[in-house]
Amino acid sequence: MHSIGIDIGGTKIAGALVSDDGEILSELRAPTPAGDPAAITDLVVNMIEQLREGQSVIAAGVAAAGFIDAAQSTVYYAPNINWRNEPFRERLRERLDIDVTIDNDANAAGWAEFRFGAARHVSDMTMLTIGTGVGGAIVAENRLLRGGFGTAGELGHLRVVPDGLLCGCGARGCIEQYGSGRALLRMANEIADAGGIGLQMAVERERAGALTGEVLARLLIDRDAGALHALRQLGRWLGQACASLSAVLDPEMFVFGGGVSIAGDLLLDPVREAYRDHLPARGYHPEPQFVVAELVNNAGVVGAADLARIHASTIGR
Amino acid sequence: MHSIGIDIGGTKIAGALVSDDGEILSELRAPTPAGDPAAITDLVVNMIEQLREGQSVIAAGVAAAGFIDAAQSTVYYAPNINWRNEPFRERLRERLDIDVTIDNDANAAGWAEFRFGAARHVSDMTMLTIGTGVGGAIVAENRLLRGGFGTAGELGHLRVVPDGLLCGCGARGCIEQYGSGRALLRMANEIADAGGIGLQMAVERERAGALTGEVLARLLIDRDAGALHALRQLGRWLGQACASLSAVLDPEMFVFGGGVSIAGDLLLDPVREAYRDHLPARGYHPEPQFVVAELVNNAGVVGAADLARIHASTIGR
Repeated sequence: MHSIGIDIGGTKIAGALVSDDGEILSELRAPTPAGDPAAITDLVVNMIEQLREGQSVIAAGVAAAGFIDAAQSTVYYAPNINWRNEPFRERLRERLDIDVTIDNDANAAGWAEFRFGAARHVSDMTMLTIGTGVGGAIVAENRLLRGGFGTAGELGHLRVVPDGLLCGCGARGCIEQYGSGRALLRMANEIADAGGIGLQMAVERERAGALTGEVLARLLIDRDAGALHALRQLGRWLGQACASLSAVLDPEMFVFGGGVSIAGDLLLDPVREAYRDHLPARGYHPEPQFVVAELVNNAGVVGAADLARIHASTIGR
Repeated sequence: MHSIGIDIGGTKIAGALVSDDGEILSELRAPTPAGDPAAITDLVVNMIEQLREGQSVIAAGVAAAGFIDAAQSTVYYAPNINWRNEPFRERLRERLDIDVTIDNDANAAGWAEFRFGAARHVSDMTMLTIGTGVGGAIVAENRLLRGGFGTAGELGHLRVVPDGLLCGCGARGCIEQYGSGRALLRMANEIADAGGIGLQMAVERERAGALTGEVLARLLIDRDAGALHALRQLGRWLGQACASLSAVLDPEMFVFGGGVSIAGDLLLDPVREAYRDHLPARGYHPEPQFVVAELVNNAGVVGAADLARIHASTIGR
């Protein structure tokens, strides 16, 4: 039987009907009515009803950025929807006669990579999503690690520098400030300001008005020395964080997703190098693989649909 | 049915016959024949045979410091026994007609706290063992988190300072160098050297020849300002590490074991304080409890026995 996945992003809401082997059978998309929780709920309900029409569907899963409880039911906090302690699952079930679950969006994306993507052949994986911020998901012994309260896998808030840069979460020194797309742009701007290998970046920045992700991507394709240096800095911070995460979680595989992961080995090579430099007790235990995510754009809906299916098929067991 | 737990420490080997509710029914102890792997194996075999005599025993579990594979079978590396890639489980089974498993000693101790000690009422806990070094164990959804290769939960090697103090593992900046008993003595010596609140410590150090754990314990009982300051520094480092670990693992409870945990709230108060100061997104999700371990001396044998029992009773399922 199929299931439905919905991914509530900051700018758009994506929905899909997904088969039990992770294939997308039909898709819907709409702009997010940001700041209007009632409109978001209406949209999600309508999407699920549309995708369901004439289909045999076991369950629907909704993914959103934020903290969701371990029962996949209550949203403690969702910055994009402006929710605090919202019983979103109940709200949706009142209007839909189908099993519904809520999951964190990075967890949903990581689960999709584990089930159908880059990590489908391992039992223990750690995913880092390098977008504007840094998201994370952990799979241990073939199970999504949710934590005691449901908020595990917030890997962007692993602290890598004591009293380091202020993070949006209120703490300081989180890896999100050293390993995210936003951090990459900050590092690139510093290198452009310094001249030398940053000269070409400074020229392109001047021309474009700002160093955007697109400008940087173009410079990386041209193997610009300054852009490569910025990506290398970013990769080295992420590799150090992975060494810490290995000591804690010991995954067989680290999967890198999000926009920055499109850089492929240009990102992964410095990650691997810094990982090896900083791994505790190197040579005394096996080491993980480092790979790039495979499902990229669809991971959120596919993972949310699969997590909903698993929830529905284990109820009452 | 009972099971047997053996804990191979650096100075002594402890063995016990353990009931299925974690009670110790009989005990044995012997000095570790350090550096002589064959003698250690003989001793473990003899202990298991002695403890087993006339009893109905389902399995035996052996705990040792080091890296053990996820199958509870091969010792990748055990510093106290001088082993590399040793098929210890097979070696023991050749000489014993009973199911045998091998586990990391901190994992065994953590499992005992989860099953029968301070964390028996929660499903997700993280244990930090503050002895000479810092050990760790993670329980997620009522299961011991072993990792993809078996070496998860090495929490002493979470990195808290980039290019920080050199650690015995070869890396730099591990929490073991800022949160262990050895780190506490280093901090206490620095405070004693500085005079002021360290004056009394300097006097006691002079009298005893060195600032040992016992000297420091006595000073803490007397609420010496210098000793309290050292413990507070230690606790604050550990609290910061817990904030990072919460972002990754989200436990309901942090359990502190090992010799230093005897300080109780003198240790836990600065841990809690630093945790709150450094927790990402504080106030937007539930927070864990911080408690001291309950089983202290027996945790290793009790946990090893229980893990062996679980392994034996799930074989073939």
